Amino acid sequence: MRYIDFRSDSVTQPTEEMRQAMYSAEVGYDVFRDDPTVNRLEKMMAERTGKEAGLFVPTGTMSNQLAVLTWTNRGEEMILSSDSHILEFEVGAAAVLSSVGYRVVHTEDSILRAKDIEAAVRPYPEDIHVPRTSLVCLENALGRGSVVPVPLMKEAYEAAKRHGLNVHTDGARIFNAAAALGVNIRELAEYTDSLSVHLSKGLCAPVGGVLVGPGAFIEKARRYRHMLGGGMSQSGILAAAGIVALEKMPDRLLEDHENARYLGRQLETLPGITVDQTRADINMVFFKWEHRSEVFLNALPARMLEKGIKISAGSDGNFRFVVHNDISHSDINYTIEILKSIMNQYHDFIL
Amino acid sequence: MRYIDFRSDSVTQPTEEMRQAMYSAEVGYDVFRDDPTVNRLEKMMAERTGKEAGLFVPTGTMSNQLAVLTWTNRGEEMILSSDSHILEFEVGAAAVLSSVGYRVVHTEDSILRAKDIEAAVRPYPEDIHVPRTSLVCLENALGRGSVVPVPLMKEAYEAAKRHGLNVHTDGARIFNAAAALGVNIRELAEYTDSLSVHLSKGLCAPVGGVLVGPGAFIEKARRYRHMLGGGMSQSGILAAAGIVALEKMPDRLLEDHENARYLGRQLETLPGITVDQTRADINMVFFKWEHRSEVFLNALPARMLEKGIKISAGSDGNFRFVVHNDISHSDINYTIEILKSIMNQYHDFIL
Amino acid sequence: MRYIDFRSDSVTQPTEEMRQAMYSAEVGYDVFRDDPTVNRLEKMMAERTGKEAGLFVPTGTMSNQLAVLTWTNRGEEMILSSDSHILEFEVGAAAVLSSVGYRVVHTEDSILRAKDIEAAVRPYPEDIHVPRTSLVCLENALGRGSVVPVPLMKEAYEAAKRHGLNVHTDGARIFNAAAALGVNIRELAEYTDSLSVHLSKGLCAPVGGVLVGPGAFIEKARRYRHMLGGGMSQSGILAAAGIVALEKMPDRLLEDHENARYLGRQLETLPGITVDQTRADINMVFFKWEHRSEVFLNALPARMLEKGIKISAGSDGNFRFVVHNDISHSDINYTIEILKSIMNQYHDFIL
Amino acid sequence: MRYIDFRSDSVTQPTEEMRQAMYSAEVGYDVFRDDPTVNRLEKMMAERTGKEAGLFVPTGTMSNQLAVLTWTNRGEEMILSSDSHILEFEVGAAAVLSSVGYRVVHTEDSILRAKDIEAAVRPYPEDIHVPRTSLVCLENALGRGSVVPVPLMKEAYEAAKRHGLNVHTDGARIFNAAAALGVNIRELAEYTDSLSVHLSKGLCAPVGGVLVGPGAFIEKARRYRHMLGGGMSQSGILAAAGIVALEKMPDRLLEDHENARYLGRQLETLPGITVDQTRADINMVFFKWEHRSEVFLNALPARMLEKGIKISAGSDGNFRFVVHNDISHSDINYTIEILKSIMNQYHDFIL
Repeated sequence: MRYIDFRSDSVTQPTEEMRQAMYSAEVGYDVFRDDPTVNRLEKMMAERTGKEAGLFVPTGTMSNQLAVLTWTNRGEEMILSSDSHILEFEVGAAAVLSSVGYRVVHTEDSILRAKDIEAAVRPYPEDIHVPRTSLVCLENALGRGSVVPVPLMKEAYEAAKRHGLNVHTDGARIFNAAAALGVNIRELAEYTDSLSVHLSKGLCAPVGGVLVGPGAFIEKARRYRHMLGGGMSQSGILAAAGIVALEKMPDRLLEDHENARYLGRQLETLPGITVDQTRADINMVFFKWEHRSEVFLNALPARMLEKGIKISAGSDGNFRFVVHNDISHSDINYTIEILKSIMNQYHDFIL
Repeated sequence: MRYIDFRSDSVTQPTEEMRQAMYSAEVGYDVFRDDPTVNRLEKMMAERTGKEAGLFVPTGTMSNQLAVLTWTNRGEEMILSSDSHILEFEVGAAAVLSSVGYRVVHTEDSILRAKDIEAAVRPYPEDIHVPRTSLVCLENALGRGSVVPVPLMKEAYEAAKRHGLNVHTDGARIFNAAAALGVNIRELAEYTDSLSVHLSKGLCAPVGGVLVGPGAFIEKARRYRHMLGGGMSQSGILAAAGIVALEKMPDRLLEDHENARYLGRQLETLPGITVDQTRADINMVFFKWEHRSEVFLNALPARMLEKGIKISAGSDGNFRFVVHNDISHSDINYTIEILKSIMNQYHDFIL
Repeated sequence: MRYIDFRSDSVTQPTEEMRQAMYSAEVGYDVFRDDPTVNRLEKMMAERTGKEAGLFVPTGTMSNQLAVLTWTNRGEEMILSSDSHILEFEVGAAAVLSSVGYRVVHTEDSILRAKDIEAAVRPYPEDIHVPRTSLVCLENALGRGSVVPVPLMKEAYEAAKRHGLNVHTDGARIFNAAAALGVNIRELAEYTDSLSVHLSKGLCAPVGGVLVGPGAFIEKARRYRHMLGGGMSQSGILAAAGIVALEKMPDRLLEDHENARYLGRQLETLPGITVDQTRADINMVFFKWEHRSEVFLNALPARMLEKGIKISAGSDGNFRFVVHNDISHSDINYTIEILKSIMNQYHDFIL
Repeated sequence: MRYIDFRSDSVTQPTEEMRQAMYSAEVGYDVFRDDPTVNRLEKMMAERTGKEAGLFVPTGTMSNQLAVLTWTNRGEEMILSSDSHILEFEVGAAAVLSSVGYRVVHTEDSILRAKDIEAAVRPYPEDIHVPRTSLVCLENALGRGSVVPVPLMKEAYEAAKRHGLNVHTDGARIFNAAAALGVNIRELAEYTDSLSVHLSKGLCAPVGGVLVGPGAFIEKARRYRHMLGGGMSQSGILAAAGIVALEKMPDRLLEDHENARYLGRQLETLPGITVDQTRADINMVFFKWEHRSEVFLNALPARMLEKGIKISAGSDGNFRFVVHNDISHSDINYTIEILKSIMNQYHDFIL
């Protein structure tokens, strides 16, 4: 059965072209650097982002953690936003793998600005009471559904550099950011030393992404990748799909963004729903549904599943719907119809 | 030369009685648990705090880090305030030694309340994206110079227990807190599973403190103490001074607090000085000196040193003066006189 | 260009059937446990090995390191052979990721016997000077090319259990071991608590393997897998090839073993070559080439590469040739011919 | 009650001169580097050993672990003997604190020779499968009771340097080694980059030792010391005893060595006892007692304790007796008498 799946853009299916590319991929043993398809993808991604080198990785979490391992020494600190992916959704990996501490910045809009970095850097590097700050971790697009404008990235980068810090950017949705900002991904990559690019969210590759950065950084990260168990054998199979993702899919992301806007507008036709417009830059719709009973809100995922629609559970009436390549305009219309019919069923129970 | 040293209460000299106790201390090899004086101090501190057992440690940092090592498993998270000693002044030890992450709470007044704990606990323990929360770290008195009222400690403790978390309290100045709150230290120890008590700040022992908690916890911490290099030989020498500190010094802490109040009032007689009354519960005076030139403010430590007074450098006119056993009423009067005379010397340079 | 590649069985190409299985694989988001193909492979492998549950992993290194992370607590020790894969070829991961120490046993034949385990367990668990021993890591087949007989596995397992230790077995080539010993893989899996099974060496899958063990162990390992960055998206693509590997490939491993024997006999027809018969249980040929000049030995890899044959550099005349699905009987004959012709070219330079 | 304690030289009592020195020590806050007595001891030890700088530490374990933390980066490997103190008696600290791996060398006589180091260094630093080797840990005197001759130290040091490795030496009994070898401690310190010197074993200081090495190394170690909780307050109390230990005690160590020889000869007058002469260079007597019943051997510690003599339990008839400042010639005679009388009591039970 086919589902309409709003839970994440991580659920995207590989395209037919990707499946064919994987079927016919030329592969070798990548640990010996013998896989021509992996080598080609790494080179392509480095060129697209204007970086010296790239490293194929199975997940965005590994990509980010490799950056932390490679840029820091044991016992140092990294500056990051309180709702960054590295802090919130990577199982606390950095303390375990890298033995580094979190210098957490709380912000209103999740954007780590130059002034935040200035305030968070440990002021007296020679003071033996405090760890050395060595890394700043940024994100673009942000997990909250908005993007960081290029001038703010530039200012943050320059602030980091004034203090001799390296900058890593989690670009799990960097192509969404580029599309939303109307810039080339290379303009965003300019203001970071290393960048994680994911190929398997909105871009639909089944597995993987590429970490890019300076050549020496990537060589060091390659050993750490082996240490984490990410040194795969004939990963050219996956890289073949990644190449299709990189060449064909970024251009269609604006369609997802438009569909998300359309979904937002349609949702707001339902009574009680307000879309958060500050989190509406890319392919996600964050909305609050007020004046509904808890019974209704809790039942929603299960009732929609019966109709072939998957959504994540809400919290206090707050929901996130994510749009992607496998969700069409008519899927959205169907979803609105289903929401209306479920509302009608629950009509008696609410005011 | 004798100095009047306002930089910290860590600078306190051991008393004559302590020196005599160290001279005549009965000692043994504590790694074999053969040191009668260490054993006695550990037992005394456990009784005073109403805990099962105690462990002698050379520093407050080791005491706190042993609690983190002992209460957590690799990869878990602990909740703590953004300006807690563990986060700010222990060289980022917890990430290195314990491989645990920091769940940082930013508060106005440094008090970690029940609601903060509720908000910081990871909501879905079964979610594989997030680490398990296992520990809450509190402080009393707070490094900012204020104390946490007993009801707030109780509420925080109960919130932690609702979520199955253990609670450690950094009590480097727990006797100051008890004195300021007018309660017995045992009342404060009731709302924490483990407690670090320092003997070498305001209580004037030269080296050491005691970590107290449940018997099984202390046994496990004992092995970690050896791992960190804190398993000392004839440490009864130090424990002997610690026993004097514990028996004789807590009662005189109110004198320090009164001296700090007196110092505050005297400082406010100088033009431009305002004491922060929200940070004035114990033996510290936090004040801001306005309308003074940067030249004057930067020169202050060196000019006072010439007159036998040690102070820490200020930041934007903000200073901390700490009062303790080696600073008398007349030392304070002398200090005010010196401040006035230095002000006069710089008179011409400011408006 | 097609090469005959003796460097490792990690270089094996996926079969046509695997490529077709990947092309048509039904996939979902495995982090949500929605991937039917991954679920099917994990269940299949658990059944084949007689274990409760399985976890798909991208590499054998990740599989082993997950076992270490999951079976141990921070600061404990694991017993392992001095030439085990975990110690020798996993970039020192266990100390970094798990904070565990190595209790290294040196053996003549790489087999960790019951008596070795008895001798290596820390004798006084209550002694605060020593870490607790918690894990024994075994291997079968051994990286040196031999296998561990079932009775020795049983005795080692029972010795570990007498001391309350868990046992993990690195089964990167467990199917080779089963074929060589003439037993079902399940008989080998009986004497270990967890087992890493690799699908991408001799079994030819492009990427991945399965870690099997008790249900609660696998659930805990699943979170650690996410932490290491091994929580992939639509990994059913890879699992589809893995299912073909598991169903079709084990039965043909004896053919590789026979080819290795054949290669060994043919090599021994060349002057100066002696095959190490103590390391000849599976698909590898370890041989020493004596009476050849260093010039010849060093030039060998490059000269053979010119003829389409890849070999690893030797050390003091010692070479390892690995046979696999992509090396046929006639490839071996061709290789011997090439070796002879290169020998002739170097004839003048050696005695 | 006074005991004759053969269990370790860690049990030594501080001398009267040390107690007086502690009583009258001039002290300050060492974290601010204000303690004149600590500063003096660090300087003295640096001069004695010919190193640039010293750092006062509470224990030998901390001293060694600081060296490991300071000389290595996360994930590297250190070479050490299978029965080195760092590996055997420091609770597995290096894996936890430093995230480094153990490259364990098994030797007959515990001496790590140049050839062992050559064999243990990872051969291909660029191979991503293996960690980088960065440190060699030596010991002199060895815990087994023998010393390493200067030429072997020199050769080991030069082998390490050929591979760019740093060398740390655990000199818990370096003064015993110097006395036994008839050389100045400085000659031994020449062939190591850093050295742990203990003041509280044979030298009788109650607590502490000094880590010496290059100035930049010590500065880095100072921060790590704070991280481990070894940054003590008025530790000049302990340093004062350490200065006495350093100035007065090394010259009398030969007396301990002679007493150990005397004890060995006397023990060998008892039937069944053989002293291991390969482990008899310093203040320890290792002997095997044959032809005695297990009942007798197990009862020995308790029966001797009744007579005021403490010994460690034996293992298979093997015992270690350690001689030190608190054990006199007549104590040894008394001990032999007691052993004889206990033997007589058990006479009936043995052949």
